Amino acid sequence: MARIDGRASDQLRDVKIDRDYLIHPEGSVLITMGNTKVICTATVEEKVPPFQKGSGKGWVTAEYAMLPRATGTRTQRESSRGKQQGRTMEIQRLIGRSLRSITDLPRLGERTIWIDCDVIQADGGTRTAAITGAYMALHDACTKLLQKGAIQQNPLLQQLAAISVGKVKNQLLLDLCYEEDSQAEVDMNVVMTSDGKFVELQGTAEGHPFSMEEMNGMVELARKGIKELLVIQKKMIGT
Amino acid sequence: MARIDGRASDQLRDVKIDRDYLIHPEGSVLITMGNTKVICTATVEEKVPPFQKGSGKGWVTAEYAMLPRATGTRTQRESSRGKQQGRTMEIQRLIGRSLRSITDLPRLGERTIWIDCDVIQADGGTRTAAITGAYMALHDACTKLLQKGAIQQNPLLQQLAAISVGKVKNQLLLDLCYEEDSQAEVDMNVVMTSDGKFVELQGTAEGHPFSMEEMNGMVELARKGIKELLVIQKKMIGT
Amino acid sequence: MARIDGRASDQLRDVKIDRDYLIHPEGSVLITMGNTKVICTATVEEKVPPFQKGSGKGWVTAEYAMLPRATGTRTQRESSRGKQQGRTMEIQRLIGRSLRSITDLPRLGERTIWIDCDVIQADGGTRTAAITGAYMALHDACTKLLQKGAIQQNPLLQQLAAISVGKVKNQLLLDLCYEEDSQAEVDMNVVMTSDGKFVELQGTAEGHPFSMEEMNGMVELARKGIKELLVIQKKMIGT
Amino acid sequence: MARIDGRASDQLRDVKIDRDYLIHPEGSVLITMGNTKVICTATVEEKVPPFQKGSGKGWVTAEYAMLPRATGTRTQRESSRGKQQGRTMEIQRLIGRSLRSITDLPRLGERTIWIDCDVIQADGGTRTAAITGAYMALHDACTKLLQKGAIQQNPLLQQLAAISVGKVKNQLLLDLCYEEDSQAEVDMNVVMTSDGKFVELQGTAEGHPFSMEEMNGMVELARKGIKELLVIQKKMIGT
Amino acid sequence: MARIDGRASDQLRDVKIDRDYLIHPEGSVLITMGNTKVICTATVEEKVPPFQKGSGKGWVTAEYAMLPRATGTRTQRESSRGKQQGRTMEIQRLIGRSLRSITDLPRLGERTIWIDCDVIQADGGTRTAAITGAYMALHDACTKLLQKGAIQQNPLLQQLAAISVGKVKNQLLLDLCYEEDSQAEVDMNVVMTSDGKFVELQGTAEGHPFSMEEMNGMVELARKGIKELLVIQKKMIGT
Amino acid sequence: MARIDGRASDQLRDVKIDRDYLIHPEGSVLITMGNTKVICTATVEEKVPPFQKGSGKGWVTAEYAMLPRATGTRTQRESSRGKQQGRTMEIQRLIGRSLRSITDLPRLGERTIWIDCDVIQADGGTRTAAITGAYMALHDACTKLLQKGAIQQNPLLQQLAAISVGKVKNQLLLDLCYEEDSQAEVDMNVVMTSDGKFVELQGTAEGHPFSMEEMNGMVELARKGIKELLVIQKKMIGT
Repeated sequence: MARIDGRASDQLRDVKIDRDYLIHPEGSVLITMGNTKVICTATVEEKVPPFQKGSGKGWVTAEYAMLPRATGTRTQRESSRGKQQGRTMEIQRLIGRSLRSITDLPRLGERTIWIDCDVIQADGGTRTAAITGAYMALHDACTKLLQKGAIQQNPLLQQLAAISVGKVKNQLLLDLCYEEDSQAEVDMNVVMTSDGKFVELQGTAEGHPFSMEEMNGMVELARKGIKELLVIQKKMIGT
Repeated sequence: MARIDGRASDQLRDVKIDRDYLIHPEGSVLITMGNTKVICTATVEEKVPPFQKGSGKGWVTAEYAMLPRATGTRTQRESSRGKQQGRTMEIQRLIGRSLRSITDLPRLGERTIWIDCDVIQADGGTRTAAITGAYMALHDACTKLLQKGAIQQNPLLQQLAAISVGKVKNQLLLDLCYEEDSQAEVDMNVVMTSDGKFVELQGTAEGHPFSMEEMNGMVELARKGIKELLVIQKKMIGT
Repeated sequence: MARIDGRASDQLRDVKIDRDYLIHPEGSVLITMGNTKVICTATVEEKVPPFQKGSGKGWVTAEYAMLPRATGTRTQRESSRGKQQGRTMEIQRLIGRSLRSITDLPRLGERTIWIDCDVIQADGGTRTAAITGAYMALHDACTKLLQKGAIQQNPLLQQLAAISVGKVKNQLLLDLCYEEDSQAEVDMNVVMTSDGKFVELQGTAEGHPFSMEEMNGMVELARKGIKELLVIQKKMIGT
Repeated sequence: MARIDGRASDQLRDVKIDRDYLIHPEGSVLITMGNTKVICTATVEEKVPPFQKGSGKGWVTAEYAMLPRATGTRTQRESSRGKQQGRTMEIQRLIGRSLRSITDLPRLGERTIWIDCDVIQADGGTRTAAITGAYMALHDACTKLLQKGAIQQNPLLQQLAAISVGKVKNQLLLDLCYEEDSQAEVDMNVVMTSDGKFVELQGTAEGHPFSMEEMNGMVELARKGIKELLVIQKKMIGT
Repeated sequence: MARIDGRASDQLRDVKIDRDYLIHPEGSVLITMGNTKVICTATVEEKVPPFQKGSGKGWVTAEYAMLPRATGTRTQRESSRGKQQGRTMEIQRLIGRSLRSITDLPRLGERTIWIDCDVIQADGGTRTAAITGAYMALHDACTKLLQKGAIQQNPLLQQLAAISVGKVKNQLLLDLCYEEDSQAEVDMNVVMTSDGKFVELQGTAEGHPFSMEEMNGMVELARKGIKELLVIQKKMIGT
Repeated sequence: MARIDGRASDQLRDVKIDRDYLIHPEGSVLITMGNTKVICTATVEEKVPPFQKGSGKGWVTAEYAMLPRATGTRTQRESSRGKQQGRTMEIQRLIGRSLRSITDLPRLGERTIWIDCDVIQADGGTRTAAITGAYMALHDACTKLLQKGAIQQNPLLQQLAAISVGKVKNQLLLDLCYEEDSQAEVDMNVVMTSDGKFVELQGTAEGHPFSMEEMNGMVELARKGIKELLVIQKKMIGT
């Protein structure tokens, strides 16, 4: 059965990462995956949260948001609503945790890197695109710290990328667009490192519990897609 | 290597489910897993959220909280803080989604079942204990609806239970207590149905990415533990 | 005229205080008065609020909440509502003030004792049960401070207990349950010490102003009930 | 022992009630008791809160606030703080409850009277001054409703006034000013009707529990003071 | 065409400034312009906001609010609403900015003067009345600082006053009352110093863009009105 | 004296308007003025706010925000702060009011157009760039309504553009960049229509009151700049 946009079931959408997208941040990219577009920035702040003070270790934290009209119908701003929604909190916790898992916090020293992921156009897979793009912004910010001698060793131990997979009309698919995602019976987000290990694996049955086999099939698809994303990153960062 | 409380690596803590724990709710249990204690209640409300109005379908939603002194040090109340934290939102979204995955919403009719999970004592695994207990409260509330003729068919298609597993000091362990959880390199929560399918599977590397093999090992442990929980539930609900 | 549950007009409901109810807090009880059940905990924190800093004196403060389904119909959580309601604030101010009135704050030293009263089942008289139970939790926390030598003298100068009284269908009644309370023309909460003095006395006409005589009658009833509660406490704490 | 301002122990401060103080509200007064000044307004709204809809009955509710510089040092605005404090909520609940106790809600019909009490200068006794003044504003709003035929019978069954009493340096005093109040060992607020009955009686020990005798002494003082306030009101409203 | 209250098009309403209106603040006035009445107070606080610390300079900041029944229909309190509205923020930013423009902040030293403007009765022009009155309160607070030797030189470099002008039914009018303001096609607020310079000039087309000529006409009217206000202030402050 | 970027004192920065910038909104542009970049979108909603219901008239409203790293140092998100700041509210009120002044609301019918202006990179003049860009987004949304027959006549009566001017080191300058703006003694924002009339004119002295002459000079500069912006818009919209 053909996909909406004619892709093969194991095919990523067109991926593009515009580096140094903004003039102010220490690292910034616009990542495009099909119609999904996310601005990812990295900001270095020379202090750590209270729980990390005096530890000699740094911190990496993330925030995620969508422009009101990133979506098909307008979404109310969380600032005018007065609070962030559960979905937002869940995603930004996922992004922060994922990036910390590849970061040697002692090498970073007592500083925080703030990752901001702002979706300007959404068509499925915004959280995984955000992670893949945020890695690049984080990489560029760390490189600047190295270049100016603020740190001695690269705190990033691995590359990091993420993708969504799912089961749609009984077929396992890689990199769901919004229309596929909204029909998915199962939805899985996978975050992996360049040495092939898992950082996060979140599978959710949308009303249709899934079997062990299906889980394994989705994990395989995800590994294939993430490998391709890691190659794209690799080209940009050089050896 | 022995576990803190002398359990085998694939052994659950003592489980106890006190049914009809409170007089007011349509369903209520106190679930005890080792030192973790959660009050789970189910409340029937004769209306649905706006997005479900006129659909003929019901809704199941959950809220989760901890008493301030459920934990070793006192936690500030979210009501005095003025908002729920990301962790709370993530957990209550997980509980609600899990219970909906085994519920036939049209059979429920246009009514909402509110699930409240309040942790009165925490020692690891509160979200999975909450799911296992909430299933029982939901079951009892549905039974009451059937008995009084408000609905014609049981909307619950399967039983549901959940457990945590993890990798601690290089060993895969079932049903982590707090001390184990705080040392875990990997932490995984698994939610399964009585026909052996997955509803949620969330694996998180706490700074140590995990391999495919480790993932499979943890999933096996979780299946074993959940099977035992389903038997305990089964005894309580009868055929 | 007989009471709903067959009690005499000057008779308390069955009272039970389960001590050391939770493993984490410095003091914790479950107090049961009829169907009203409140978990009261005391937490010692080694600092004081800003206004007390450098004074050499300690502080005692209280928070009060109800589980959503402690009541006949579900109450929205104050954390999801985003703020505490007037009733909650009024009650927790009352509990804190009452406990401070029997506490020698200089003996406590510059530390705070947090009292948390969480109603898990409500059937009238939750605020007075909370005070009677909170005294026991506070007592146990102070005893621990004495035992480990953190303080030299018991800061609690008296025992403390509380009860509600009211005028229902023209009859003065002790210890109202919810159904009586909701029909009461006058409602009075009384907090007293073991040497027979008043700490708080709050009488409220629910639409029917009350006479001096009625006030005196209610105060008498309250004194009788509180004396019995003090005896129960006394047995638990020994000399 | 002489009082700060030379008053006898059973003497009120100078009382003044400026009627029709503002042009917009249906009823409005500026009540002055010594240096305490409160603007009390009554606003008629042609609807009731949801819980009263269809009941044929009206509602009376109150809000209370202080200008930031009503006090000796500036108090932060509750609007910039983002929420009302416990003290504010307690006071406005007291004012509303007191006024409702003398109002025949069915005679009012399905409309709400909003009472706003804004303290522009505070020197003790603001809540009791607010009640005494609010009664006048409510009276004037009801009179307008009668005059224009919106209601047929006066919904106010009694006059209402309030005063504070206390025990200061072992002496029982009527109508405490701020300096007396801040030294008081016991503080009592009493609200009474023109037929000599109690509507609210709230006695609080500020660290010094009080005896039955002291309570009776304070109640006597309060009755004397309230009688004088009722005479002042009576003169203004005529027969 | 005659104005509602018979004034000439370039005529101010009756202006009255009651000085030392309250006993607690360092400066306080009640300014009355027609039916608009605003209490303006100045509070000296011996510290500055974080951004000004260590600069040797002081700060002047303002807050603005309306009593709920200052207006024809009751306005909900911003404290019960939980936040300040856009209009409120805009006005208090304007007042603060205007007063700072005539204040030599180094002469003030590291202290803050809080300006509170509380509208007790509104009939148009509340923000400009607030500025004119706030100048007087600020003046009096500065004089006290000078008198007690806390500062050496008057930090106020000029007098400051403000007025509204507008175009109503094609006529340019000075000092609009509420009814005129609600029909205005253009609305302009002007803040000027005693040496005839502009501090703020805010012209807004309410649906009818305005020409250069009209702008000039309105500015002329405003200058005339402000000159008269400055004379009134001058008389009060002496040389 | 030369400007930072070598421009003449009456010269705009490079202006670029990318139309149809996003796929979902009814109108969307990315406006670039030098290094300032703002995404402006227009969303049609088929209902009006309560105060406009039944009037037959539509509504235009705006929201404004900045990405956290649009600026040189990271700004905390208003959603995590829990509220919008005064500056944000002031700007979005200005944008909405300006657009409504050129919109025939009855022609729009009972629908709302939401304007969202999100600054992705800030270098001064974000609010005026937002207005100039928002006009284009609004124009495109109206054109779509016309094309599909939802409305019969173009509700936009004029074009609209805005620019900032200021006095920097005694020189009057057009279109200030951030560095100029932060040194400005006077700052003025001007909004004008294509027939040369003013919609908003807001001049603010940053500590240095300004004369009539200076005001006239700034207004002249603004007119020149706005004329150029209107030409750019005109080319894009055709006749």
